[in-house]
Parts: sequence; structure tokens; C-alpha cells
Amino acid sequence: MSLTVGGRYDGILGVTAALEVLRTIHAAGYKPHAPLAAIDWTNEEGARFPKMCCASSVWSGSQKVEAQHALEDLEGTQMKAELERIGFLGKEKCSYIDMPLSAHFELHIEQGPILEKEGKKIGVVGGVQAMRWYKVTCSGREGHAGATPMDNRADALLAAAKLIAVVNTSSIAHGAVGTVGIVKTATEAVNTIVGGAWFTIDLRCPYEHELDAIEQELKDAAKKITSADGVMFSFEQTWDCPAVRFDKTALSCVRAAGEEYIGKEMCREMDSAAGHDRFHTPGIRLTYSAETSMRVPTAMIFVPSKDGISHNPNEYTSKEEWYKSNCDKKLTTSADGAQVLLNAVLKYDSILQGE
Amino acid sequence: MSLTVGGRYDGILGVTAALEVLRTIHAAGYKPHAPLAAIDWTNEEGARFPKMCCASSVWSGSQKVEAQHALEDLEGTQMKAELERIGFLGKEKCSYIDMPLSAHFELHIEQGPILEKEGKKIGVVGGVQAMRWYKVTCSGREGHAGATPMDNRADALLAAAKLIAVVNTSSIAHGAVGTVGIVKTATEAVNTIVGGAWFTIDLRCPYEHELDAIEQELKDAAKKITSADGVMFSFEQTWDCPAVRFDKTALSCVRAAGEEYIGKEMCREMDSAAGHDRFHTPGIRLTYSAETSMRVPTAMIFVPSKDGISHNPNEYTSKEEWYKSNCDKKLTTSADGAQVLLNAVLKYDSILQGE
Repeated sequence: MSLTVGGRYDGILGVTAALEVLRTIHAAGYKPHAPLAAIDWTNEEGARFPKMCCASSVWSGSQKVEAQHALEDLEGTQMKAELERIGFLGKEKCSYIDMPLSAHFELHIEQGPILEKEGKKIGVVGGVQAMRWYKVTCSGREGHAGATPMDNRADALLAAAKLIAVVNTSSIAHGAVGTVGIVKTATEAVNTIVGGAWFTIDLRCPYEHELDAIEQELKDAAKKITSADGVMFSFEQTWDCPAVRFDKTALSCVRAAGEEYIGKEMCREMDSAAGHDRFHTPGIRLTYSAETSMRVPTAMIFVPSKDGISHNPNEYTSKEEWYKSNCDKKLTTSADGAQVLLNAVLKYDSILQGE
Repeated sequence: MSLTVGGRYDGILGVTAALEVLRTIHAAGYKPHAPLAAIDWTNEEGARFPKMCCASSVWSGSQKVEAQHALEDLEGTQMKAELERIGFLGKEKCSYIDMPLSAHFELHIEQGPILEKEGKKIGVVGGVQAMRWYKVTCSGREGHAGATPMDNRADALLAAAKLIAVVNTSSIAHGAVGTVGIVKTATEAVNTIVGGAWFTIDLRCPYEHELDAIEQELKDAAKKITSADGVMFSFEQTWDCPAVRFDKTALSCVRAAGEEYIGKEMCREMDSAAGHDRFHTPGIRLTYSAETSMRVPTAMIFVPSKDGISHNPNEYTSKEEWYKSNCDKKLTTSADGAQVLLNAVLKYDSILQGE
């Protein structure tokens, strides 16, 4: 079959593209083997009610529906009451048992700069990176900045600074990304040696064993700094989210759809590094595809994000082609993604039909 | 002559010791060549009215008396009104012209750990270190901690951390002390790459040219980090206080008094690194001896500070001998200082008499 999606997609890319896929199939009179549905997961970003993957985690069974219904927004309104008020509190049980799926495909913006930077159009997403968060505390000794000799100091900020540099070098060495986003000191005075400091570490990598290795390197480095600087480090792991590997068959459908439609040179195998975490929200969850992948074959497609910006008013994925690449097709990027989604879904449907 | 101070000194060490010196001379019926005075400089620590070396700077002419009188405490009470209320607004003009001195000697606690650590009892203070303060700002680019590759980052906190380490190594290499007491970031989220950061630097050294060299090394290091990390640094010097070298004759009197009384092995030549700066007070000034040294021969004597702690409720200089050293004399440390002060003053008086 050869169906072509029309339109240009504004707004919520994934849902709009999913609806366009259904519209295209319907308009062509094509009858798939498996019934198709577009799912608009409720409150998945936790934008109003403070929980990521709110609905998809109910479907996957990793969260209880009652707990999600009881979530309150900043004004104290519960989600259940609000769903009722707007007429969206359905009666169907939305679990993987009561409302089973054969597979789940998701189109998403990359939320990062890789596709744009490399001039690629389609990301073939193999899974979601493992993530670990730490809070590292360093205890030293306060002192007078003028009167305390350099060899008699236990400078907690200096020690933290040394370890922050190791987070960077060790992450690079292991093909991971590592970030220190927060650093705090117990004192804040120009002329006081900092006696206590803490900072956060955000580590992500497709491979858990690399994260293990980085963690070990950081602890080894902390030991060296401890003995040299007379400080004490303590590590607390505040979050640990294992890597997700998507279903090989579903993934192969995305890969084939992308390569056939737009060319292998325009596709890139990659992992989702974002996991739908929001800035300033500590209790983050993975993307909904991570939830569905717990129950059914799942795959994701990425399209480029302008300047790699995400979760920011400047987040943008153009309807127009907007990067200079060696691609001679004048296709819009969001439509590229929708077309690959359509083709991948039809490929998977063929496989289901053959089984 | 051989006069011995009595008493053990609690409270404000310098003033109490100065009064004890006068009392001892008077009690012995000894008549010095030059009249002696104990000066209790008003509001010298700026504890109530926000100015260091408040009175000594009026005496030295570096500040106007009207400006000091107009200083307000936290309740808005002016210093002049308060001096009047308590009956201490004298009529004498307290300037180096109207109330000249031949010399000025000061006993002070070290406000640092050197004497205690080295088991010394008397610091022979050659001067006050030069001090420079900087605010260093680093501009990078915010980004998603998961989705931004390591080679596409401009992490302002990482860059700051690298430079903080250089403050340490460069200060040590040049025999200075260097401290980063405050670091702040524009964002504070576990999963956001820091796009902007600033930190302070406090550098002190007896030699200005070493501070010049450190500053140059920091700027060179910043340039290297800039080109490697894609960030921008800017340096602002927020304070610059030149080194003070005390009068050689006054200093030699302190040295001789210390060595004769307590032995050369118990004395240590050193610089004042503190300069009477207060925690959390940006507009700090030097110790009053730095003010008097602008006009007359001046020297300082240090006695040990317990654990090197100063400007802190735990600041303590014992009346009893309190460190384990190879000294077999059972002398109290504050009395040691007062005795050396007495002997130094008498030595200088002899020199004046001989002139």
C-alpha cells in the first residue's frame, strides 16, 4: 500500500499526527488487519496535575487509577473532579487488561539537538536511556579566607568543584551524559572558606553497566579528594530509572518505514534521552512509550527539535524544512514524522496479519 | 628595665592589655620618655555602625569624622547621637595632626591557625597582606540534561568549577591564599545544564606582584576553558587593598621584645592576613594598625587563636597555656602578648629618648 499523509501539523505533534494517520487510512478506504486507535494520554506531562505519564502508567498498571484521580493541581482541584466537570471521566477501564493493545507507536520531537546537528530527519528510537540521580554532600571546615593557610583547609566548595569536573570527564569517557544542575553551599560570604556544600548529579546512558562504572569512578575520585583535601563526601542516590529497550519487531518497522520513505542517510538510530522529565519537577517519569513497552511491543519515532530546545517556550519543530542538509526532498519535518508513523503502523499491521 | 605585667586578660584582649601595660609602668613608678596612651578606637569592627576602622580612619585622615558620625545602625540611630547620649562625644579633634603619636603598637589575636599549629607563642607582624576581591561571571547555555550531547554543551557551572580549582592551585603556587566563598547559578534544577553562574574570589598575599601573577593565570585559564567549553567569562575586581609594610624600627622592637622574653624559637615572623574584615560585610577595611601605619611607625603582636577560629562565637585565646609545645614555661598566652607589648613599647621609648 502507499498512503500519503496530508496537512501540516501545529500544536501537539504526536496526537495530531496520530489522528492524521487514522484520517489518511480512512480516506483511502484501506482496512487494516488490526483496529487502529489514536490515544491522547491524559496529563502525561504533569503540566497541571503533578505526575508524569499519568494515564499511561494507569494503563500499564504501574500506577493505580485512584491515586492519579486524587492528584491535585495548584488550586487544590482534584483531577477526577475536573475530568467529571469537563465530561471526560469515561466509564471504560483503561488498563492493559481491559483495553489491550497489540502494539504502540509514538511520534515525538527529539527534545535534543542531535538530529538537527547531524542533518537527519528521522530518529529511529531504540529505547529510553537509563537515568540515575544523586545528591552528593561534602563536609569540610569553615575558616577565615585570609588567615587560614592553604595547607590547613578543608574547603568543601573546592572539593565539590573537583568532583564536578570528574562528573564531566567520566560521563564522556563512558558515552553517557552527566550534569550537575544544582550546587549549594552552607555559607555564602566572600571571605569565608566554605565548610559544607552539596550538589546534584544527573547521569543518563543506554547502558546500565556504564552508569555503574561512572558511579564507581566518582566514588574513587571522591576518596582521592577526601584524602587530599580533608573533606568528607557522601553519596545519596535519589532516583534510579532502568533503561528501556523497545521491541525489536516494532523497532524494525520504524527503521524500515524511515529508510524506505526518506532514505537511510536521513535516519539515525538513537535513544530517547529525555524521558519526559520536566524542569523543576523532581518526581519525573519516563515517556509513555516506556510505560506501554512494559506490556506490548512499542517503538518511537523522533523528528528534529529546533536548536535542540525542549520544555521551553522556544520549543519548535517546523512544518517547513528548516535545516540545510543534503536532502533534496522538500518535505515538512512534522509530516515526515507522520508519514513514517503511518508506514510503520501499516508494516506492523502486515506482520500481525501474517501471524 | 624589667617590668612584669600581672593579671589574666578576658574580654577585649588588645585594650585590656594596653591598660595593663600602663598600669604596670605606673605601678613601678617608671617614667617613660614619651607619654603613653591606651587607645580604644570607637566602632573599629563596625559591629554596630557599618564601617570598619571607623575611628582609626578618622585619625589617619582617610575618612571624614562627619561621615563616620552620620553612620546609622540597623535601627536608624546615628553614631554621633549615640555617642552624645552615652557621654562619649569628646571635644578633642582626633586626627594625626591634632593628636599626634610617635608610634602605635597593637596586640591582637592571630585570627588564624598558624601560631597554634606551629606551636609558637608570639607573632611578629611585618605588615598586612594585600587583598583583592573579584566577581567572576560565566555565561553558557541552558540545556536539557538528558538530551544535550556532551560535545554540544556550554555548561557554566562546569566551567566555573574548573576555574575554582585553578584559584586554588595558582594561589598555592604563588604563596598566596585564595578562596571562593560564594557560587551562584542562574538555574537550579537537577536536569538542566546551568546556563549562567558567578562566583567570588578572595586573594591575599604579602606581595602585590604575586597577586598580579595569579590574576593573569586565572584569566589565562578562563580563556582556555572558554575555548574548550564554549562559555564566556568576565572578571570584575570588586575590591583592591594594597599591602601594608610596618615600620622597620617599630617591628624590630617587637621582634627583640618577643625573642628576649619568650625565646626566638617561640616567635614567628608573619603577616596579618585578616585585616579586620567581617563576615558578610563587603565594605571592609584594614586593621587600625594599617590606618596608623599611614602616619606613624606602627607594629603588631599576635598571640594564638584557639583552632584558628575568629569572628565567630568560638573565637578564643586562652589565659592558660593551651597547646602542647616544647615550651617549658608555664605562661598564659594573653599575658605573654601583654608582656611583649610592654617590652616593645619600652624599647621604642628608649630609641625615642636616644634621638
